[in-house]
Amino acid sequence: MSYQVAVLAGDGIGPEVMAEARKVLSAVEERFSLAIEYTSFDVGGAAIDNHGCPLPEATLKGCEGADAILFGSVGGPKWEHLPPNDQPERGALLPLRGHFELFCNIRPAKLHQGLEHMSPLRSDISAKGFDVLCVRELTGGIYFGKPKGRQGEGENEEAFDTMRYSRKEIERIAHIAFEAAQGRRKKVTSVDKANVLACSVLWREVVEDVAKDYPDVELEHIYIDNATMQLLRRPNEFDVMLCSNLFGDIISDEVAMLTGSMGLLSSVSMNSQGFGLYEPAGGSAPDIAGQGIANPVAQILSAALLLRHSLKEEAAAVAIEVAVSKALRDGYLTGELLTSDQRNQAKSTSEMGDYIAQVV
Amino acid sequence: MSYQVAVLAGDGIGPEVMAEARKVLSAVEERFSLAIEYTSFDVGGAAIDNHGCPLPEATLKGCEGADAILFGSVGGPKWEHLPPNDQPERGALLPLRGHFELFCNIRPAKLHQGLEHMSPLRSDISAKGFDVLCVRELTGGIYFGKPKGRQGEGENEEAFDTMRYSRKEIERIAHIAFEAAQGRRKKVTSVDKANVLACSVLWREVVEDVAKDYPDVELEHIYIDNATMQLLRRPNEFDVMLCSNLFGDIISDEVAMLTGSMGLLSSVSMNSQGFGLYEPAGGSAPDIAGQGIANPVAQILSAALLLRHSLKEEAAAVAIEVAVSKALRDGYLTGELLTSDQRNQAKSTSEMGDYIAQVV
Ligand SMILES: CC(C)[C@H](C(=O)O)[C@@H](O)C(=O)O
Ligand SMILES: CC(C)[C@H](C(=O)O)[C@@H](O)C(=O)O
Repeated sequence: MSYQVAVLAGDGIGPEVMAEARKVLSAVEERFSLAIEYTSFDVGGAAIDNHGCPLPEATLKGCEGADAILFGSVGGPKWEHLPPNDQPERGALLPLRGHFELFCNIRPAKLHQGLEHMSPLRSDISAKGFDVLCVRELTGGIYFGKPKGRQGEGENEEAFDTMRYSRKEIERIAHIAFEAAQGRRKKVTSVDKANVLACSVLWREVVEDVAKDYPDVELEHIYIDNATMQLLRRPNEFDVMLCSNLFGDIISDEVAMLTGSMGLLSSVSMNSQGFGLYEPAGGSAPDIAGQGIANPVAQILSAALLLRHSLKEEAAAVAIEVAVSKALRDGYLTGELLTSDQRNQAKSTSEMGDYIAQVV
Repeated sequence: MSYQVAVLAGDGIGPEVMAEARKVLSAVEERFSLAIEYTSFDVGGAAIDNHGCPLPEATLKGCEGADAILFGSVGGPKWEHLPPNDQPERGALLPLRGHFELFCNIRPAKLHQGLEHMSPLRSDISAKGFDVLCVRELTGGIYFGKPKGRQGEGENEEAFDTMRYSRKEIERIAHIAFEAAQGRRKKVTSVDKANVLACSVLWREVVEDVAKDYPDVELEHIYIDNATMQLLRRPNEFDVMLCSNLFGDIISDEVAMLTGSMGLLSSVSMNSQGFGLYEPAGGSAPDIAGQGIANPVAQILSAALLLRHSLKEEAAAVAIEVAVSKALRDGYLTGELLTSDQRNQAKSTSEMGDYIAQVV
């Protein structure tokens, strides 16, 4: 029996970092005698160019037949003139999340030892390190709430969006946050705006209820505005951050930037059957695409997450993570992680992939 | 003829910093021969304790009879058990904003020369300084949009909020941002989430339209998630940031924290008749209340903004701002702005007020 993985490399640096992830996957497949079949599909701008829409029917069907999706990145200046609904990011990611009910987005952001200088934080703050896991609800809230639209004319023309959360939706994402915290530093910080939003009041109530099942985990609530601030002063005091869709979008990006090394961060978006979409945290970076300098680590770590969460091949996942750590420790770094006087030691995209595949 | 100012000192450090602002106001009144009458009213927790609600009728009436409101700060642990609607912050600030249609919130955040070490940013980033003006829409969006509420039962119980913006609402706040930019570095960064929200798509269209009236001002659009990130890497590249209510809440707090000196920041919330509410950016800080160590500068600068925007007494406003700058340059600083080995030189709340009142 072999696993089926749908590969959606996408645009910009997507294809070149995906090639390195495939190299590393081949190496672990051999080492752990796994059988994985890969099928590639167009997505994003590439799909617009080839088929006229960012998420063609064939791609969706291909994903339906797979055990997991390994996603690259989508978007670029070429498609920015299109109406919002037809653009690569919104037109591919949101329907994929909705179609497969990928309600749970997990984004780890850790400041790697030795890379503290990359963080935009003051040295005494970054010296303390941090390791935050952002658990974001991904199929509810203001992203998908109905009604959403536009009405009226002239100066009274108005637009509206609906933020909407049910007890059920909040419960299932809260459980995931608490379970994750049990395997970590046992603290959940729930982010809301309960002093303004009805959704946040319900959110807070439900999270309090769910917390009762996890007496070993500490729970605190924080307003989104204050969270944005406290992450700057004391990121090391956060463990798991539990967020609604919109607040998670903001918080996970802020924490990712605080590491200063987005090229090392990956994320998973999962449904309740363990089917997931695995992708790097950074974007398609069209400005550096095709130059062989993009960091493939985030894509490679996405592959590790895929092995762990969707294929349940924990040993293979760990092997990749260990190999990546070794590569970073051995000074295998792409240019963006080096200071300008070290830049001549920068490794290329494929040198990174080769080394990691070799030590895996 | 004399001006009428409603003084709402509130809770925590509110009353003590307000006392210093009053000292400084007395000094400028004398110097510029102004006649200002002050009437104090209860608000927030103090009003809950004395009258059973955070914004009593008498306070509202008093504000209606005034030319402007000088606001301290509200809230504290004593009132945190109350239902969200009855809590000091939400129960006082939101109705005041709504009642007087204070649609325009302006929050300057500047990294003061000599205080770069206070910023949580890496020294090479803070060394470049920054000076951001956040222009936030304050009476629309998801804060006030209807319907807002709760329905259903059991696991299907759900809560909902409505984000709603009309062309008219976006236009008036956009004009304020562009006018402000004309007097500054001539750049407006409009923050939205147009890849997800219908409101943001309209927001972007209207801002583009308004921009045509200001050909000398550069306009750029940025997604809220990316804005949160870029402020960490290159805050110096932003001038005026134009935000909806919710995004402005987040962005203005993030930028305030980036200065590392919230005790120096004040803000104004205005309506189209020039009536305004002036307040410090920081909160009521109950942990340090009553110790005489709170920084009164933000409250004093709120008074300067009040003189400028509501009373049109520009010279008196400038005099206060110059006096504050002199005090900071002369090393008059409260403890939170000093490193631990300088802490013995810290000035008290009243020493700060005395000095500023004296040099004004
Ligand atoms: C592209 C966009 C719709 C998306 C989001 O807002 O969720 C992105 O920012 C993300 O976080 O994956
Ligand atoms: C207290 C709260 C309702 C308020 C807001 O969200 O507007 C506060 O955070 C602010 O920014 O003035």
